[in-house]
Order: sequence, then C-alpha cells, then structure tokens
Amino acid sequence: MPRYRLTIEYDGSPFCGWQRQADRLSVQQALEEAIFAMSGERITTQAAGRTDAGVHALGQVVHFDLGKMWNPFRIREALNYHLRPHPVVVLESEAVSDEFEARFSATARHYEYRILNRRAPAAIERYQVWHVPKPLDADRMGKAAALILGRHDFTTFRSAECQANSPERTLDRFEVRRELDHIVITASARSFLHHQVRSMVGSLKLVGEGKWSPAEFRAALDARERARCGPMAPPYGLYLTKVDY
Amino acid sequence: MPRYRLTIEYDGSPFCGWQRQADRLSVQQALEEAIFAMSGERITTQAAGRTDAGVHALGQVVHFDLGKMWNPFRIREALNYHLRPHPVVVLESEAVSDEFEARFSATARHYEYRILNRRAPAAIERYQVWHVPKPLDADRMGKAAALILGRHDFTTFRSAECQANSPERTLDRFEVRRELDHIVITASARSFLHHQVRSMVGSLKLVGEGKWSPAEFRAALDARERARCGPMAPPYGLYLTKVDY
Repeated sequence: MPRYRLTIEYDGSPFCGWQRQADRLSVQQALEEAIFAMSGERITTQAAGRTDAGVHALGQVVHFDLGKMWNPFRIREALNYHLRPHPVVVLESEAVSDEFEARFSATARHYEYRILNRRAPAAIERYQVWHVPKPLDADRMGKAAALILGRHDFTTFRSAECQANSPERTLDRFEVRRELDHIVITASARSFLHHQVRSMVGSLKLVGEGKWSPAEFRAALDARERARCGPMAPPYGLYLTKVDY
Repeated sequence: MPRYRLTIEYDGSPFCGWQRQADRLSVQQALEEAIFAMSGERITTQAAGRTDAGVHALGQVVHFDLGKMWNPFRIREALNYHLRPHPVVVLESEAVSDEFEARFSATARHYEYRILNRRAPAAIERYQVWHVPKPLDADRMGKAAALILGRHDFTTFRSAECQANSPERTLDRFEVRRELDHIVITASARSFLHHQVRSMVGSLKLVGEGKWSPAEFRAALDARERARCGPMAPPYGLYLTKVDY
C-alpha cells in the first residue's frame, strides 16, 4: 500500500490534543475525516508527537497508508479543502517508502515555547502565548537551561502519567531568548517525556522571576522527584515546530 | 477635568470596528464600558484611528476625560481587569494635558499589513493574515510601492464612502519585505483616507502576482478613479501599529 507523509500546522486551541478520544474532537480525528472525505478510505494516521490539548504545531509530521496511488500535490490540496473549517492545514505532502514511520523514524523533535512577558495580557495572541506579567530575566533563564543539557534522568520534569519505559532522555538544545515583549524558549531532543517541555518551562519561569537560582534549577533535575518541579507551563504557549528524520 | 491617554492593543475579529454602532459591539463600546465599571463615569473616548471591522491594533491611542484624578498605573490595571473577556488590552496609560487629542494631535500613523504567502491556508494565524496562495514577488511590490511615495490625490485608493474633505495625502513610508512565508507591508502617513491602506495593498498584490507592472500601479494612482483600484485587501491582515505625536 502506498504510504504518504504530511507536514501539518494546527492551532491546538479547539482540540483535545493530537490523539483520538471518544467524546471530544482531536486533530487526528479531523485529519482522518478529511482523508476519508477525499479518498473514501477509513485509515489510521500516526504522528511524530502526540501533542496535548491546546498545544500547537507548526511542523507536525504524520504518515498513513492508502489503498490507491495519489498525486501528493492533490492530497495536500484536497485535504486542505476538506479540513475546513478546522484550524489544521497540510503544508507538505509526499509519497514515502513503507519503512517510514512518523513516530519511530524521527531522529529529533523541536519545540518552541512562547511567553508574553509584559504587564498587559495578550489580546491578539491570547491563545498563542503564556502571559507572565512579572519581568523575567531571560539571560538567567538561559544560564539555567544550559545546566541541564545532555543525558539525564528527567523524572522531575515528567508527568506522573508518563508511559515511557525510561525517564532518561538526551536534551540537545534548550535555549532562551528575548524578542521585545516575548521570551522564546527552544528545546530539541530525539524524544521527550510526557509534559517534559512544559514542566521544564514552568520551572525555568521561577528562575526568571528570581525565585530559583540556576543551580537550584539543576538541583531540581538531580533530585529526580516530580514534587520538585515548578508549576507546569500552560499548553497554549507550546509549539511543535519541526521533526527531523 | 483630568485627561488620560491610553495605548491599546486589540484583536479586531469580534468587533464591528473601533466606532460605536447601535446594534453591534465595537472596541469603543467595550472600552467605555470598562471605564464605567472602573469609575462609574459614562464618558466618550476618542481614538487616533477609527479602524474598520476586523482590523487589529498593536498601538491604537485613545484619550478621555474623567471627573476624578486617577493613578495612571491603576487605570491600566483596572481596565485590563474589566475589559475581560474582550480581546482588548491597555498597554500604557498616562495623564496628559487637556490640549492632547488622540485624533487631532497625531503627527503620524503607522500601519502594517500581513500576507501569508504559501499554498496552505493559515491555521494558527487564520484571523491575523491575508492568505494569498499564489507566489508574490515582494521586490516587485516594493518597487511599485516606492513609486507612490509623497503627496498625491489618492482618489483611486479611497473608499467611495470616505468623508475626508480632500483626497490628497502624503505617504511617507510604503515598504514591502518578505519574512519566510509572510509578506509584510508597512505604511506611514500623517493621516490616511478611508480604506486607503487596504486599497493600496489589494492593488500591490496584483503587482506581486505579475498582473500589473509597477508602472501600471503608479498609473492607477495617477488616474484618480476608484474603478482603477484592485480588489481591496481584507481587514484581518491590517494592524494599526503605532501613532506618533
């Protein structure tokens, strides 16, 4: 069966997350219904990252198989037609070998977390950033972030419901920069634990506010205790930006 | 009576525009109701630019008078509290002399128009950009834009309902740049005619598509005929970014 790979963008706000749920609309369901409307085939899609409710994607990668051969350009156009009015769009579509797996072939996942750091709440970006009114010290946050790069047991920054076999992950990039009123945090790894980025960002905010020193941030990691994690950052500031293969 | 000046940001999507209307919610009404909730005073606000339905503002300026003296910092905090859940926020608040008029004291208004120029529609930015799927040549658009700088009769780029006494305006800045998939157009003038920016951008899009040459764009201006204007760009890509005094 021919296999197709999509790169998709979505606004996570109206969805219960990537993964199908019985009673609420997921990105996966919206996409699979569009594929059905196009092809008449009821198929299951697999995504590189199972984003949580409210989390956005600028470059989520998905694969699926169809019984029939399709022109990838037509797939993109047809799916973008049938996906309306859901805020999900297909950026790229290509035919791939059946050895390609969106989830298991990925070699790196890249996330971005956006904080609006000013007194006034967000108006235009109200579903797209985490509003933190107190001034944050981005340089201090960046110093703390650099202290946890590399391979570690990330139990502190892992959801209690995380189903991964091991709490060990290798954090390849974790950087903080200020862009006027925004603080942008980028994180890259082969894979992340459940809630890992939001847990790290929530704790990094405490560093930015001056409540934790960078060394205390590192100590929270070393403690390997979920209770040492700061309050988790909300989902709507998080973007899955890119997946490498 | 003490006079106050606010700098406000808003998402224009849910509003009928800045100006009060009997039957639909305007930004002005949302703001004046928040001022009433704060102060118990029913006042009228005046804005630098009366943005149309769907048009956004990053730096709209407003003034109003209150019977009582208020700490400007408290005004900002109280209005941001009372404005919820409307997507309107007060960025800055200050006490000003009663000679200050948001509309008449302005020396320059700055707008930005954002086009998403890629095949796939916008997902996250669906109410924040104009989606133009055909590739646009930003350099060519920039060359055309430069041809209409300065003082001209802008009848071609003026709404039939425009109430200004004169169709003459001085365009001080009109530039086009590409930022990855986005084309960003900036326009500055002491004041603009009704629908002027959207009319100019809609015509500039024809240049970017190759349907008009830069010289034809300039010729449309010189014709001083509304019928020579290209199809007007939609409101949701337009931002009032800043007002100078």
